[in-house]
Amino acid sequence: MRDVYHEELNSIGSTLIEMTGLVGTAIGRATTALLEADLQTAESVISADDAVDALQQQLDARALDLLARQQPVAGDLRTIITSLRMSADLERMGDLARHVAKVARLRYPDVAVPPQLRDAIAEMGRIAGELAQKTAEIIDGRDVNAARELQDDDDAMDRLHRELFGSLLDKKAEFSTETAIDVTLIGRYYERFADHAVSVAKRLIFLVTGEPI
Amino acid sequence: MRDVYHEELNSIGSTLIEMTGLVGTAIGRATTALLEADLQTAESVISADDAVDALQQQLDARALDLLARQQPVAGDLRTIITSLRMSADLERMGDLARHVAKVARLRYPDVAVPPQLRDAIAEMGRIAGELAQKTAEIIDGRDVNAARELQDDDDAMDRLHRELFGSLLDKKAEFSTETAIDVTLIGRYYERFADHAVSVAKRLIFLVTGEPI
Repeated sequence: MRDVYHEELNSIGSTLIEMTGLVGTAIGRATTALLEADLQTAESVISADDAVDALQQQLDARALDLLARQQPVAGDLRTIITSLRMSADLERMGDLARHVAKVARLRYPDVAVPPQLRDAIAEMGRIAGELAQKTAEIIDGRDVNAARELQDDDDAMDRLHRELFGSLLDKKAEFSTETAIDVTLIGRYYERFADHAVSVAKRLIFLVTGEPI
Repeated sequence: MRDVYHEELNSIGSTLIEMTGLVGTAIGRATTALLEADLQTAESVISADDAVDALQQQLDARALDLLARQQPVAGDLRTIITSLRMSADLERMGDLARHVAKVARLRYPDVAVPPQLRDAIAEMGRIAGELAQKTAEIIDGRDVNAARELQDDDDAMDRLHRELFGSLLDKKAEFSTETAIDVTLIGRYYERFADHAVSVAKRLIFLVTGEPI
């Protein structure tokens, strides 16, 4: 009986890693869709988010079932509660990737991002994908050190986000209001994606060390 | 022993209602700070959010302690897990009110919202406050019907949010890029505040009826 129980606990961990992989792929593809005005890719990112939502629902149902049937204490209880919270973060990261793809779709066949801001958005997309990749490794290896280092990548994202506003406000560029709205929202989506990756990493630190978040 | 236990469960419910009251007050005062360029009110909203965060931490600690000590099943288990999720929504609503107040502070002594958009923002603030008020009553009364009706208020918020973008894009208005950025973010904060209120209401429906979210 206890073996099945621990298999189920492990399978929750695997699902978290799978969800992290999916949202990492999604934010990378959403960035491509956005910068290339690639409608097909945008559509596929939007519809693929259903798989992330489904995984979250399955994971949460299994976690609640384990809580009810096994009445775990101490470390196992902490693992299950933390998994529920991580799955909420990951589900939200999926939503944010979908939001980026929706901006691409809304402006198609135009490119929502003006040429002067392409590099900044590409870099935000790259960092977001890297954060997801590292988050998967952190969960897989229960790697507290890597989890602490993730904060640095998020600092880079925050810096890019501030610079993006600076570029938008550049008097010489004279961006349209539509561009200002689009880029403000897109920037916010990437920044929030990164925040949730950091949140997952902090939860992993709590899980392993008991340090409050 | 079981009486203490149920007292503790009830006190978790009371804390949720208290948090809802605080974030409702916060979004109302943040709206005032924003529309009146009232720095003192903005500062007080920003610092008051610490109390919401502290309540969330206390609530979560008590909920985890109950899970570990009492190993609840069925309805009580569902109550505790749902409470953890509601507290996460409410904590986020506090953050969003703080974000609105921060825009007010950033632009002081100017008003971040241009005259043409005042009414729209005032109305979004009013609906957000009303959603919080209703959410408190819904939790307090475990009121499934009121929880279902909350969706209508959120629809009104979504409509206002769309109209806000339309007003921003009005060619005749010629808003500055700074205004476009500010109003885009402010609109997003109110819309997300409303989304989280709806999320709390849906969780209440799940809690009472078992209907999946």
